[in-house]
Amino acid sequence: MADLDPLYAHIDEHAADYIEKLREVVAIPSVSSDATLRPKVHEMGLWLQAELERLGAETKLHYPGTHVMDGEELELPPIVLGTYGTDESKKTVLVYGHYDVQPASLSDGWTSDPFTLTELDNGRMVGRGSTDDKGPVLGWLWVVEAHQQLGIDLPVNLKFCFEGMEENGSEGLDDMIVAEADGYFANVDAVCISDNYWLGTSKPCITFGLRGVSAFALTVTGPGWDLHSGVYGGTLHEPMTDLIHLMGTLVKPNGEILIPGIMDNVADLTEEEEALYDVLDFDVSELEAAAGAQTLIHDDKKQTIMHRWRYPSLSLHGIEGAFSGQGVKTVIPAKVMGKFSIRTVPNQTPDEIAEKVKAHLEAEFEKLGSKNTMHVEALHGGKCWVGDLNHPNFKAGTRATEKVYGVTPDFTREGGSIPVTLTFQDALGKSVLLLPMGRADDGAHSINEKLDKSNYLNGIKLLATYLHELAAETDL
Amino acid sequence: MADLDPLYAHIDEHAADYIEKLREVVAIPSVSSDATLRPKVHEMGLWLQAELERLGAETKLHYPGTHVMDGEELELPPIVLGTYGTDESKKTVLVYGHYDVQPASLSDGWTSDPFTLTELDNGRMVGRGSTDDKGPVLGWLWVVEAHQQLGIDLPVNLKFCFEGMEENGSEGLDDMIVAEADGYFANVDAVCISDNYWLGTSKPCITFGLRGVSAFALTVTGPGWDLHSGVYGGTLHEPMTDLIHLMGTLVKPNGEILIPGIMDNVADLTEEEEALYDVLDFDVSELEAAAGAQTLIHDDKKQTIMHRWRYPSLSLHGIEGAFSGQGVKTVIPAKVMGKFSIRTVPNQTPDEIAEKVKAHLEAEFEKLGSKNTMHVEALHGGKCWVGDLNHPNFKAGTRATEKVYGVTPDFTREGGSIPVTLTFQDALGKSVLLLPMGRADDGAHSINEKLDKSNYLNGIKLLATYLHELAAETDL
Repeated sequence: MADLDPLYAHIDEHAADYIEKLREVVAIPSVSSDATLRPKVHEMGLWLQAELERLGAETKLHYPGTHVMDGEELELPPIVLGTYGTDESKKTVLVYGHYDVQPASLSDGWTSDPFTLTELDNGRMVGRGSTDDKGPVLGWLWVVEAHQQLGIDLPVNLKFCFEGMEENGSEGLDDMIVAEADGYFANVDAVCISDNYWLGTSKPCITFGLRGVSAFALTVTGPGWDLHSGVYGGTLHEPMTDLIHLMGTLVKPNGEILIPGIMDNVADLTEEEEALYDVLDFDVSELEAAAGAQTLIHDDKKQTIMHRWRYPSLSLHGIEGAFSGQGVKTVIPAKVMGKFSIRTVPNQTPDEIAEKVKAHLEAEFEKLGSKNTMHVEALHGGKCWVGDLNHPNFKAGTRATEKVYGVTPDFTREGGSIPVTLTFQDALGKSVLLLPMGRADDGAHSINEKLDKSNYLNGIKLLATYLHELAAETDL
Repeated sequence: MADLDPLYAHIDEHAADYIEKLREVVAIPSVSSDATLRPKVHEMGLWLQAELERLGAETKLHYPGTHVMDGEELELPPIVLGTYGTDESKKTVLVYGHYDVQPASLSDGWTSDPFTLTELDNGRMVGRGSTDDKGPVLGWLWVVEAHQQLGIDLPVNLKFCFEGMEENGSEGLDDMIVAEADGYFANVDAVCISDNYWLGTSKPCITFGLRGVSAFALTVTGPGWDLHSGVYGGTLHEPMTDLIHLMGTLVKPNGEILIPGIMDNVADLTEEEEALYDVLDFDVSELEAAAGAQTLIHDDKKQTIMHRWRYPSLSLHGIEGAFSGQGVKTVIPAKVMGKFSIRTVPNQTPDEIAEKVKAHLEAEFEKLGSKNTMHVEALHGGKCWVGDLNHPNFKAGTRATEKVYGVTPDFTREGGSIPVTLTFQDALGKSVLLLPMGRADDGAHSINEKLDKSNYLNGIKLLATYLHELAAETDL
């Protein structure tokens, strides 16, 4: 394997260039959920294509079509595809990232303009998209550029897949991946996604699991239209009363899910798995700080993290159709939809969850003795995912982290879902590694999103090293 | 007492004129809750002032000031005051009405333009404001006009009070009434309001009671900001879970209020009161039709009407701060406010209700064992009202109804509140009579609002007759 020290030195020497480029892309407000900014998302996609072309990659734009948002039909931004290297003697690594960002405005409480990358004295680079996911996406480009500038042979072929709708449902992405599994992605040997975060703020991690999500809409319908609570209150069954009672049968204030049988298939905790929790760089005070409250259910770190990663949870999100404005409106809403979702874990399946939820709610509604009508709809069911830590893809990621950071990474899961992970694994049949660049406190979807300069530079080294380590794997 | 037959004949002969004038005012879209239509509300107020002047009343416009709506500072429409007659040997009757209307647009499902009065073959006159409350307001004008045209002496002095903000909080009205109690309203002997409806569709009524309303906001606060349910679900106490459980402790699906002691002060049912229910022109199928659903809690008419009028009810209106849009957003809302209100009855008081609600919710929150924070706020407390059926004002209304309709009216209450009723009674210390013109199915706040032509004409006769009957009362 090549000596990577010159590469690391080169990356440090070019820090200013990399930051300047990050500043350039943060300044493009590619907010995918804002119709007025859709042209900026397209602009950002074309910027990436141009950079890939400059580096010698062969590129292709996949346009998934149009969608309707805020009553307007909009062109979906392109999925930017790139091929760098076609040497059949090398392995091919598919890297995924996204170039769209969350909304941001000064009035939300940012301390500096969100679309102007602002370097602070403590090394933080503040700006929307800095860590989610423009920093990591650019990181892959600088890996290629650094190899070229130093004349070091890139040890693998790369396939790039950068989308512009990740923050807005990834429309069109899954279809494209499935359609191109035996086409554009046919020769892929492994997949790497850098779009999540360290568990804490000081120790790097490798992520091998994600919870799934099963979302539901629970509808109770009564009157033909909204009614005046003075005129009708006390005379008829009110849908809101039924709905509130039903929602109350789903989960206890201590987080315990009350749906019969819901825990039946949850994977048993093995000693091997349990040992992973003991070494984690994690303190509950960090979670409290990130949540802005000292309202944790469990007192100890291990229980807290297990309930985030390996046990299901149920959250009540809100109610559609009821009064949700300020003040008070003395209305009896005619039709109300409670929205809730369950974060699912191995070995729960969406079908099993949906069946149990429906059976439970139907039984509970029966008990209410209401003349209203109830309907439960499973809105979507994203499966959970667990990767194999013993797979060469993970081994390569682990060794790369050890080389760059001098420490064995934490092996983490995430409570949330990154649906594309499972799509890649299922459609391509290849291992998918989640190799984060940023830290837990980066504030990906919050105000003052940042990427630490050190994470940016070490992240570029990490991605480069990972490719070398993967190339050295013989039994991929 | 004067022979009123010529008056009745005159009113019938001038039906076309009265309808034409109603068409003229329906065409002024005086929607008080629509900032863009605020000039139309003012226009309508000035129209009324001009009509009163034409009839010889001395008028005065009271401008309550400005208010902010939809972020805009708007001039409140004038309260149109008028004095007709100052004969000290006559009694003085104050009549109240409102000239603003609810919003309406064809796209809501109206079968004809809401601001074009449309006469149907079945005698219905469809148009926004026809029954609520432009028809009744105009009715008072035609009473005066008919007396003038026939040369019949109006047996009372009249004070008019027409407001333009009734559908939008009646801003400024209460203050003006209280301030003018010993001024402009000093010599008022009785008050009559024609701004409600028959209980059914075929029998007139006199209304002598209104429920009060005590509204509450129940806030549960946890995280410092909204959180991602994947990342935090299972680790912390979620405000929505607490709130849903608390809201579930307020009322059962069968309408039973679960707050301890809430029924303690509810007035006992007397035989005299009970007898009133037996003769009512009311069929539960009418209520079902008006509600658009067969979801009544009680099977019999009497229980249904008693729960509408003389027992309290609790309605859950909705939640502020939770996700209320379409689809699903996997959010853990940081701060959620449940809105609910209790319709109150004699002898409940707002203070007593607020105290019991707070005590109950604090005890229930304690049981949850949550680390979140709870706060209960009493938003406003409008008292209930019951008039004295034996008062000469009610006797006059009763006899007038018998003369015009040939039937003893139903004596009804309403489930909702008309706050000005209590303000007049308390500020002036005089009896307030609710003497409706329209029917139960007029659809006051709904699409295709209508006033039957027969109700309009008989209503004018009724208001005129009431004034003569009241003048004949000796012990007012």
